[in-house]
Amino acid sequence: MYEYRNMDGMLIKELKAIVGEDYVITEHDNVVSYLYDETEPRLRPAANEDCVVVKPRTTEEVSKIMALADKNKQTVVVRGGGTGLCGAAIPTEPSLILSMERFKEIIDLDDKNFIITLEAGVTLGEMNEFLKTKDVLYFPCHPGDESAQMGGLVVENAGGARAVKHGVMRNHIKGVELVLPNGKVMNLGGKLQKNNAGYDLLQLIIGSEGTLGIVTKVMLKLYPESKFTGTLLVSFDSYDQATEAATKTLQSGIIPLSIEYLDRQIALRSAEHLGEKWPLQKGNVDLMFILSEDSEDALFDVGGMIEEICEVVGAVESLIADSSKDQARILNIRSNTYTASKSSILDSMDITVPPAQMPALMHGFSSIAEKYHASIDTVGHIGDGNVHNNIYLVDGEIPPYYEEMKEELYKLAIQLGGSITGEHGIGKIRRKNLPLQFDEIQINLMRGVKELFDPNNILNPRTAIY
Amino acid sequence: MYEYRNMDGMLIKELKAIVGEDYVITEHDNVVSYLYDETEPRLRPAANEDCVVVKPRTTEEVSKIMALADKNKQTVVVRGGGTGLCGAAIPTEPSLILSMERFKEIIDLDDKNFIITLEAGVTLGEMNEFLKTKDVLYFPCHPGDESAQMGGLVVENAGGARAVKHGVMRNHIKGVELVLPNGKVMNLGGKLQKNNAGYDLLQLIIGSEGTLGIVTKVMLKLYPESKFTGTLLVSFDSYDQATEAATKTLQSGIIPLSIEYLDRQIALRSAEHLGEKWPLQKGNVDLMFILSEDSEDALFDVGGMIEEICEVVGAVESLIADSSKDQARILNIRSNTYTASKSSILDSMDITVPPAQMPALMHGFSSIAEKYHASIDTVGHIGDGNVHNNIYLVDGEIPPYYEEMKEELYKLAIQLGGSITGEHGIGKIRRKNLPLQFDEIQINLMRGVKELFDPNNILNPRTAIY
Repeated sequence: MYEYRNMDGMLIKELKAIVGEDYVITEHDNVVSYLYDETEPRLRPAANEDCVVVKPRTTEEVSKIMALADKNKQTVVVRGGGTGLCGAAIPTEPSLILSMERFKEIIDLDDKNFIITLEAGVTLGEMNEFLKTKDVLYFPCHPGDESAQMGGLVVENAGGARAVKHGVMRNHIKGVELVLPNGKVMNLGGKLQKNNAGYDLLQLIIGSEGTLGIVTKVMLKLYPESKFTGTLLVSFDSYDQATEAATKTLQSGIIPLSIEYLDRQIALRSAEHLGEKWPLQKGNVDLMFILSEDSEDALFDVGGMIEEICEVVGAVESLIADSSKDQARILNIRSNTYTASKSSILDSMDITVPPAQMPALMHGFSSIAEKYHASIDTVGHIGDGNVHNNIYLVDGEIPPYYEEMKEELYKLAIQLGGSITGEHGIGKIRRKNLPLQFDEIQINLMRGVKELFDPNNILNPRTAIY
Repeated sequence: MYEYRNMDGMLIKELKAIVGEDYVITEHDNVVSYLYDETEPRLRPAANEDCVVVKPRTTEEVSKIMALADKNKQTVVVRGGGTGLCGAAIPTEPSLILSMERFKEIIDLDDKNFIITLEAGVTLGEMNEFLKTKDVLYFPCHPGDESAQMGGLVVENAGGARAVKHGVMRNHIKGVELVLPNGKVMNLGGKLQKNNAGYDLLQLIIGSEGTLGIVTKVMLKLYPESKFTGTLLVSFDSYDQATEAATKTLQSGIIPLSIEYLDRQIALRSAEHLGEKWPLQKGNVDLMFILSEDSEDALFDVGGMIEEICEVVGAVESLIADSSKDQARILNIRSNTYTASKSSILDSMDITVPPAQMPALMHGFSSIAEKYHASIDTVGHIGDGNVHNNIYLVDGEIPPYYEEMKEELYKLAIQLGGSITGEHGIGKIRRKNLPLQFDEIQINLMRGVKELFDPNNILNPRTAIY
């Protein structure tokens, strides 16, 4: 049996007094399942295995744990659904892993103010299931992984494909209950449409990657759902045409739920992986418009208008799926693009640029790939200027040019007015790249914010900021 | 001639060297027009007249001015359009008033990324005029006063009636150029739909009321405009019914541009003031739905659906205005509710509660008014839970119960999960009330943020935070 080395026996005893014997995990075999998230294995930092897992059930328990940790200057790493892609939840020094898995209560569905209040450990899937049973309101954001927990969705400011219509998590987070690193509890925000009292600390917590406090409760805005959906697939010869079609669609005033872009080879690989057939043959790249409207007529009107726009730009083939079975089949192929190639992908990046800079970004990808004799392909949220461009392993290994090429890709994005990460976050894997995007002035202010919230630097250190 | 007393002659000389002789104003007669904003005269703090006005033209000049002020620990108050309603721009100690009036350039209209980039002194009216000439995109927020400047709209996170559909300024601000109190220049945000790199300092600047830095450039998101608008007026016997109708409308999935509420006597007073006639007779309170749709059919469909909902709830009269002339006439009466009563209003508050708490808020208003034998009436953005409830002068004087009654109104809002200010901000007039809404933990964090950005506390001290 693994013997826990670095944490004070006394501390463990005190933790047990707070949450109960059963909820402090010290056995190595159990601890190891809490050490990693979904970050690509070749990119993630090595976890420090000298960790103890604690599983509080109440805000009061979290508060006591943090006060204890702060007093002892004990590093704490919060763990949600473990679906993160930037290593934020990986402990790299001896840590207390604070797992939110028991924060499972759906506290309140307020169908007059359109707000759902949940404990931070409820997953996106669990919330969506619950909302389905009520059939009145829905939550519009849909980041890829439904096992993501609310707390993680908040502190990672998750995005996803539906941002074209609905924006990212930030747009829908109305309030949080937060335990500060010193154990004090704050309530930020509320069921409000407007609030201009004081500095908006809630906004600072959104996207802070578990470094400023522990989110214990979340209030999200809900919306009535458009009942009619359809999927329009259109293929083009070039990504220039596809980008132009996406921009022209948005300029016309049409706001689809999503506009997704797929290099054809990615679509084909995913279809093959699933034993399916990609329904388009002509062209080299595809656009997938997901539409969501209040009536069947509106759905067909909008679909027709988009097809017209695409034709003018030079579409070579198109197809509309209105049955839910056909829609699901196409979406499933899109959703599995990553899984289908996972074993050969080294890094699935999430560079973001101003949407109209997409052609310049894609040209840049090509010439950088050529320079390094590397393969880069692209799939993602073209309507948001946010694409996942994949860098592949070579003979199962990290190619020697990887770090240099990645830095060049980041620099390209920044030069185009973009960001090195639109969705996944900085976490631990992109920390060293942050100075590419921010100068010392901003980096120092970010450090100052961290020191203000966490003067002893106990909460997820060396994460999110440089 | 007034002799400027407190500011060092040397400092004035250095200011003149930075911006040129013509742009440093020391004559009392000229300085006095820079001392106040639109805050109600009985509520605003007395300005300290020992001020010098400086009018830079470039970011570089602002940077030099701030570096100089910081070195000399000289208080600086930034001035935009002077349309603020919370005294944030009133200097209460000997100050350098930094006026942004020469920052007038519309830098770029990017109709592919739907972003306009403007210097901070461009007014809302000037931007809207410019966009009209281009006729491609529009900016959806419309806080009351079109002479508000961009910088002020950002740092006050302005709201307005159209927030039902479009939210507040925060939702549409994509980036700013900011000069820190020490003179250093930062660019925050960009033309991005998604950005998860580091802490989002831009969000902290939005709503910071000119206390963390000087906004010199602003990037705003634009949208295609819905071309068909209509105004639906519906009257009810009670505010309970009006609130229910507003909530049910939103629940049905309809999203009007605005849902405004008017106590009938306010509507009548404004109509009389304008020499107009309020078009509804029956009932005691009115709802005004402003609709904005992509087709005439959709406009009539939506109008019809809202009328049906209102009828079920107990509407006693309704009227739809679809000609632009009739719409303008009704909107003009709504827009002049404040002006019509201005001379007798002591305080037009802007309490906000969760929208479904509106009936409880209105009941509370009634009983508080009764307790103090005072008159309180209400007009405002019921769809956002944000109303302007007016407290009146008594025989032209501040009634003795005012402070106590105001605090009771604030406490009522907070008890209902609300905020003491949804639009106007804290500024200088509500600072002392901030501890009603926030505990010491939050107040200390806000102070820490201020110290981080402005360690010498030179920029608009004693504003926004407690």
